Amino acid sequence: MKKNIITISREFGSGGRMIGKMVAEKLGIAYYDKEIIAKVAEKTGFAEDFIERSGEYSPSKSIFAYAVVSRDAAGSSMDDYIFSVQRKIILELAEKGPCVIVGRCADDILSDREDSLHVFIYGNKEEKIKKIMKTHNVSEREAAKLMKVTDKRRSINYNYYTDGQWGKVHNYDLCLNSSAVGFEACADAIVNLVK
Amino acid sequence: MKKNIITISREFGSGGRMIGKMVAEKLGIAYYDKEIIAKVAEKTGFAEDFIERSGEYSPSKSIFAYAVVSRDAAGSSMDDYIFSVQRKIILELAEKGPCVIVGRCADDILSDREDSLHVFIYGNKEEKIKKIMKTHNVSEREAAKLMKVTDKRRSINYNYYTDGQWGKVHNYDLCLNSSAVGFEACADAIVNLVK
Repeated sequence: MKKNIITISREFGSGGRMIGKMVAEKLGIAYYDKEIIAKVAEKTGFAEDFIERSGEYSPSKSIFAYAVVSRDAAGSSMDDYIFSVQRKIILELAEKGPCVIVGRCADDILSDREDSLHVFIYGNKEEKIKKIMKTHNVSEREAAKLMKVTDKRRSINYNYYTDGQWGKVHNYDLCLNSSAVGFEACADAIVNLVK
Repeated sequence: MKKNIITISREFGSGGRMIGKMVAEKLGIAYYDKEIIAKVAEKTGFAEDFIERSGEYSPSKSIFAYAVVSRDAAGSSMDDYIFSVQRKIILELAEKGPCVIVGRCADDILSDREDSLHVFIYGNKEEKIKKIMKTHNVSEREAAKLMKVTDKRRSINYNYYTDGQWGKVHNYDLCLNSSAVGFEACADAIVNLVK
């Protein structure tokens, strides 16, 4: 079966978002990233930056926060609510037709779809730090810290909401080291696989 | 730089060896697998099956075996000696020209070569078991056990002789799920990347 729904999970600084955009352009299909956040904001009434943090920061996953965060009678937090709305939106977007979806546990949410290809983009530490320094205009030390914290949070979020483990090969169909292969070649490898 | 030296690490039953052969054929370059064992046998005087076991079984890595296995004054075991000979042979083979090398920690041994591409082939449990049942003519239960034990041994061997962790994305440039992608498409993805 042709794989038309492409999910991209990625390490911070690996260029996964850029590669996702390139794939969508090369294939002439839809690209969803920030659009998902906007849609969740619209449905829930929460601010977009709050939703973005919820997807990657997940403060209520820590044991301490679990005690203090507001939860309803069923034990669900606001993060859980946002995740359930986001899940529904991702399922609807995939139903609409061929697309590239970046982040937001989309690989797990769409794992039952046979027409989906799940990609993980990672990179070498030094290359990722260089990229973060440039795109975020921060020092080497700050970039290294930002990388560590963001990936840790993505990992906690993914491991909490899915049965998989973030960054482990078995969650994905294809894993690419963008530092070794290059952004363009990563995009081409994905495009060739789905063609 | 063109990547002409391709190393393939693989889970048992994932078809990595077959994919490696396809890549070598498609690119018209040398393929090394059992040849390495024959060369090590020639240099060391040990039997080929003993060397093959040494590469994947590594009995002297267990704490118990460490106490009973024969070691020289420097604490080196026969496995260590075989590994050092094998390492030298892999470095020499890569020096000879473009090739595909399967297993034997070749990705780590050749990690300094900029003209090398390191691939990990993995698969879904059910698909791998089916393949092992067919190629080894064993029951489902036996295939599952064989898979678990072989991968465990490959992992112990790799983690002992390298600084990396077997099957973790960061050791490799490209990781492919042969069950999701298909053997032919895996080979094509590798070929396209090095072309």
